[in-house]
Amino acid sequence: MRIARIEFDGVVTIAIVDGDQVQPLTPGADLDELLMAAPSERALLVQRLAAGAPVDLSAVRLLSPVQPKTLRDYATFEEHVEGSLKGIGIDVHPGWYEQPVFFFCNTNAVSGHDEPVQMPPGSRRLDFELELAAVIGKPGKDLAPEQAGEHIAGYTLFNDWSARDLMASVMQIGAGPVKGKDFANTLGPWIVTADELEPYRRGDRLALEMHAEVNGMPLPGGGDSSANMSWSFEEIVAYASRGAELRPGDVLAAGTCGGGCLLEYWARTGRDEPPPLRPGDVVTLVAEGIGSLSNQVVAGVEPIDLPRARTTSRRPRPWDALSDS
Amino acid sequence: MRIARIEFDGVVTIAIVDGDQVQPLTPGADLDELLMAAPSERALLVQRLAAGAPVDLSAVRLLSPVQPKTLRDYATFEEHVEGSLKGIGIDVHPGWYEQPVFFFCNTNAVSGHDEPVQMPPGSRRLDFELELAAVIGKPGKDLAPEQAGEHIAGYTLFNDWSARDLMASVMQIGAGPVKGKDFANTLGPWIVTADELEPYRRGDRLALEMHAEVNGMPLPGGGDSSANMSWSFEEIVAYASRGAELRPGDVLAAGTCGGGCLLEYWARTGRDEPPPLRPGDVVTLVAEGIGSLSNQVVAGVEPIDLPRARTTSRRPRPWDALSDS
Repeated sequence: MRIARIEFDGVVTIAIVDGDQVQPLTPGADLDELLMAAPSERALLVQRLAAGAPVDLSAVRLLSPVQPKTLRDYATFEEHVEGSLKGIGIDVHPGWYEQPVFFFCNTNAVSGHDEPVQMPPGSRRLDFELELAAVIGKPGKDLAPEQAGEHIAGYTLFNDWSARDLMASVMQIGAGPVKGKDFANTLGPWIVTADELEPYRRGDRLALEMHAEVNGMPLPGGGDSSANMSWSFEEIVAYASRGAELRPGDVLAAGTCGGGCLLEYWARTGRDEPPPLRPGDVVTLVAEGIGSLSNQVVAGVEPIDLPRARTTSRRPRPWDALSDS
Repeated sequence: MRIARIEFDGVVTIAIVDGDQVQPLTPGADLDELLMAAPSERALLVQRLAAGAPVDLSAVRLLSPVQPKTLRDYATFEEHVEGSLKGIGIDVHPGWYEQPVFFFCNTNAVSGHDEPVQMPPGSRRLDFELELAAVIGKPGKDLAPEQAGEHIAGYTLFNDWSARDLMASVMQIGAGPVKGKDFANTLGPWIVTADELEPYRRGDRLALEMHAEVNGMPLPGGGDSSANMSWSFEEIVAYASRGAELRPGDVLAAGTCGGGCLLEYWARTGRDEPPPLRPGDVVTLVAEGIGSLSNQVVAGVEPIDLPRARTTSRRPRPWDALSDS
């Protein structure tokens, strides 16, 4: 089943996508309820909530299929991590292999298919990231990987837009990307429920072919398969749930796949080719079994200046005596 | 005005705290509306929404005053940043002085005053962080510092609980604290509106004395003043809003003040004294003009094992030829 959020006739509602037809559900239908339901219950729920006749997909506006409470972005593709670091001449940190690292994204910046993405203020090196993301259905905490599968309602595409120049200036401070990834997180075009993707399962990996296009042209380096994740979706869900609650609608992205962004090209070849994104460019992410997520870059504003850190006073501390000696 | 979220007689509602009395508002009263209102409108709104007679503060349970959509944690106190890094023998990164860095926190992990905090799975070095936080009222984007003040509805205390051992293993990878700060974010005891804190203003800084207590004993190193922020609250709000929307209820924390956590003691003195937090310990954060936020640490569970990164296949890429040469 494909679960979308749509605007149709001025009304925002949940809808079920079937081919090029869309079945709107009653306004006020609860996405969480749909995500939490088992596949068999989900079909009954949709029957009960269906409102009016199906409409053409082309007649509706797709919104982000979910407005996540939390959005974690992992880094589970070694090739991407290695490639991104190549440009600054450093190897993958040995700690990366020990645990699937993630950071939290700006959930206020979530938008959907076909929504414009503004150039972030001050960036001249805008990039995209091709990612697959799991959407939580059943809530949970402290899950084992073997239990985590039944907490995943489905999957969607995620574009983790990245201002490479803004990131470069802060990544070594250690807090994460700061303003480099604060401005746009696009999800969509819909959520494909986990049961529908079972045919793509290879062991504990979901093997979906993925690729990215800029202005309709596939990136010259080729795509990747989600089977190349160094941890499975079940494993990253389990890790997120370690000592922390997961709730329906939470989103966990797997991180950029191999060759899934421009930075890797720049770092591997030493040339800005393909060039950084500019207003007018359209980025399309495609994943087998899911569909495609397109967004156009539009002009932004100039940054408003902020001062550097101001020097401040210090209190006398017991350890001052130690450092004087 | 002091805005709280309370549970009273089994009902969760917004309430106004006045001394040791609490005025509950109509169930369903909208916190965002209250946060967005100008101070003069806010008083009228409370009159209109007041439900029943005031009750004793001791008779209600305080909840987190807000359930933020986004929670940013900055690092604006040089003394804390310097002290935290001392233990691993490194200086503050020069980039820290150029811009106020932040990361996003887990909003699912937000709780309030007196709620228990579970030991995070696998941590033996649990710490707290004493922080002041601004709560957004009026929404905004691309704000100048001079405009940002009127977008701040008020202030509250924030305890950014930190598992130092879990952080230590990942901070150098560059994504941020990962599971080191994923398990508990306590806010409270209430929001003090910005107008009420005007008497504490010194230029563009809010000068509130802050200190922390463990089991009722103030930390031996003394507290700090929020006047020692290297960027003002207006500046960190402006920076957050650069190319990104701020919404009512969003929370921006200033970061740990000087001497406001145990890590600084450990790093400055080379001894684990005061010791890492253990089940039973009560941490209390106190800020002038606001009040105090207390939480007790309780036992947690053991972590469920995850495998290391799995080696995966690679696609041939155009740049493979380059690196062979």
